[in-house]
Amino acid sequence: MKLKVRRPVIRVPGFRFAGVACGIKQSGRRDVALIVSDVPATAVGVFTTNRVQAAPVRIGRERLRGGRVQVIVVNSGNANAFTGRAGLAAARSMTAVAARALGIDVRLVVPSSTGRIGVQLPREKLGRGILDAVAALAPGGFQSALDGIMTTDAFAKFGVDRVRLGRRDTTIAVLAKGAGMIAPNMATLLVYVLTDAAVTRPALRSALRAALPGSLNAIVVDGDMSTNDTVLVLANGVADNPPLTTSSRGYPAFAAAMAALLRRVARLVVKDGEGATRLVDIVVRGARTAREATRVADTIARSPLCKSAFCGGDPYAGRVVCAAGYSGARFDPDRIDVFLDDVPIVRRGIEVVGANERRANRVAARPEFTLTLDLHAGRATALRMASDLTVDYVRFNSDYRT
Amino acid sequence: MKLKVRRPVIRVPGFRFAGVACGIKQSGRRDVALIVSDVPATAVGVFTTNRVQAAPVRIGRERLRGGRVQVIVVNSGNANAFTGRAGLAAARSMTAVAARALGIDVRLVVPSSTGRIGVQLPREKLGRGILDAVAALAPGGFQSALDGIMTTDAFAKFGVDRVRLGRRDTTIAVLAKGAGMIAPNMATLLVYVLTDAAVTRPALRSALRAALPGSLNAIVVDGDMSTNDTVLVLANGVADNPPLTTSSRGYPAFAAAMAALLRRVARLVVKDGEGATRLVDIVVRGARTAREATRVADTIARSPLCKSAFCGGDPYAGRVVCAAGYSGARFDPDRIDVFLDDVPIVRRGIEVVGANERRANRVAARPEFTLTLDLHAGRATALRMASDLTVDYVRFNSDYRT
Repeated sequence: MKLKVRRPVIRVPGFRFAGVACGIKQSGRRDVALIVSDVPATAVGVFTTNRVQAAPVRIGRERLRGGRVQVIVVNSGNANAFTGRAGLAAARSMTAVAARALGIDVRLVVPSSTGRIGVQLPREKLGRGILDAVAALAPGGFQSALDGIMTTDAFAKFGVDRVRLGRRDTTIAVLAKGAGMIAPNMATLLVYVLTDAAVTRPALRSALRAALPGSLNAIVVDGDMSTNDTVLVLANGVADNPPLTTSSRGYPAFAAAMAALLRRVARLVVKDGEGATRLVDIVVRGARTAREATRVADTIARSPLCKSAFCGGDPYAGRVVCAAGYSGARFDPDRIDVFLDDVPIVRRGIEVVGANERRANRVAARPEFTLTLDLHAGRATALRMASDLTVDYVRFNSDYRT
Repeated sequence: MKLKVRRPVIRVPGFRFAGVACGIKQSGRRDVALIVSDVPATAVGVFTTNRVQAAPVRIGRERLRGGRVQVIVVNSGNANAFTGRAGLAAARSMTAVAARALGIDVRLVVPSSTGRIGVQLPREKLGRGILDAVAALAPGGFQSALDGIMTTDAFAKFGVDRVRLGRRDTTIAVLAKGAGMIAPNMATLLVYVLTDAAVTRPALRSALRAALPGSLNAIVVDGDMSTNDTVLVLANGVADNPPLTTSSRGYPAFAAAMAALLRRVARLVVKDGEGATRLVDIVVRGARTAREATRVADTIARSPLCKSAFCGGDPYAGRVVCAAGYSGARFDPDRIDVFLDDVPIVRRGIEVVGANERRANRVAARPEFTLTLDLHAGRATALRMASDLTVDYVRFNSDYRT
């Protein structure tokens, strides 16, 4: 679905941004983004768990070990994945160009790339683009940088919040991109969380870990896991609050703000799922174990039959129960209940759509609704946020070569 | 793809067949099939492993324990799945009606149902249909029975072969249906293998077990596993050959004929995959374990991105390697080779489509081709036969309510 999202000017104290076009995208759109902190920022991150990892992910992992990051340099239009040694050299080179132009230690620069797989980066073009981006850096450049990280995204994904920490107002903002190759445990996502708060690394890591299960790790568009997924969190401390730890009074508010922002962009990614017309929250309750709850939610979220039915706006109880049945979870099919929002469509294993047809149809036709399964087999729960599978998804992905 | 398949008259000595319409299908097409052996036949079978099992599957399992089957009674248009106790009663009732009309012990009657899930069978209609089918039974009714088991199938799936056993010519034939909900380890398949050969139950079971991995257990349309999958093998012995055991001289020929027939119908099911335009044989070599080989083949066969690319006729090396990467198999991405038929598209982890573009494009545009991955990590192999994902699949499944 195409969402009209107003794009306000967002500033995060101590950060400058730029987004420029260097010609990697044939469309001529912005394909280079630069995010620079005035001072080295405390940093944590998570990356794709795909065995095939893009060159910038491999370099980014190394750089992040130092715990401090000052520059994020991104290109879109080319993922620099599956490009061998030349790809690693290209990823290092993009950080070196940025470091030199900015006069910043290259070990504080993290690269990201997103776009087509299996094509070498055009190093010269990109080098010129990075220099242009350095020249364009500005505190108000947030939205330009956001343009520079987008690929097949139909709209920009971002958010901002303010948190009061030790008598200081601090800002926390997120820039994200992603639409296809969205599987649980990340996705083709680039997500950058930036704050001017001073936060210790353990507190930053703890807040990120707490936020992921209900946000970026719960989303499914097509179940394909990317080679390039990257989430980085940078806290530059220029707000000058007493450094936040997990036992600080302000920590819960800070962690809640980060979780809400990540949840917001996660939902936006699903809404922008390639070809998507609906966002379905799949809630599984009453499973024997958390693992089984997740398997049921995941199986439904990935099932082409269920996803096609979501698209059709039809209360498809049979397909949902069938998918739960082959998920591997242990439950008694004669006890399962299923709801669309609050409308029962299965009670104790019997389809009851008939009795509630009008209400069920009304829910299934909504752009967002919740599908709840209660297995009555235990106490574990799981959540997945899934898009539907549409004709446009297939049309798009049978034309676009990654 | 729509295949023109000539439908010859097929006879299996000692078997009679019928297919009639009783009004379950709104189209008015045949929706009842009856297969009757003149004498009780030695029987083996396999059923869906979905935890949610249709009523006829539950009854069929029970009946098969006796080791002998004389009648298969099938309805299409309604799966009698997810229908609770009333569904079990309806499945028993359909066998009782057939048994009474034929004067055959009900314990020798196995029911099957296929079609919509979650709707009670119209017992009276179906009862009348079964009586009509009994009246229509004929040795030449094979193709009518085949019509009676089809649902969304675009064409009939069947095969026949002859095997010389101990100076007797024996016949082995297969009737099958299936197009959607096709996952490895069966599918929404009803498959009936019939022979007039005399075969011991262990030999029949052994031949079936040997045939499945390369046929019905290797196919993927959408990865959704049905609640109704059933494969039955009946050997009625009227050919009067010395009963075949696994050590008989004729056993290898008999087992090979069964494997070839099941492989044939498995391929036809994939070709008839809802909306399918291509059949891709996915071969994984050089995996560390059979399980990992299967995971790689399976992940590619189910990946909406890979399947959309198959549809596009594009040499999508990146997506294939990416899917292998998140499959969970252990391999070194810098050693992987990928081929389309005999055209290399990845060599030691580097995309080489460029160098072979015209040849690779030509293969990818074929209606059938082989995608081979060599992981160079061990000696295990796996095969999946997959359809592509098309606009028509989604169109169809967002309209059709199961």
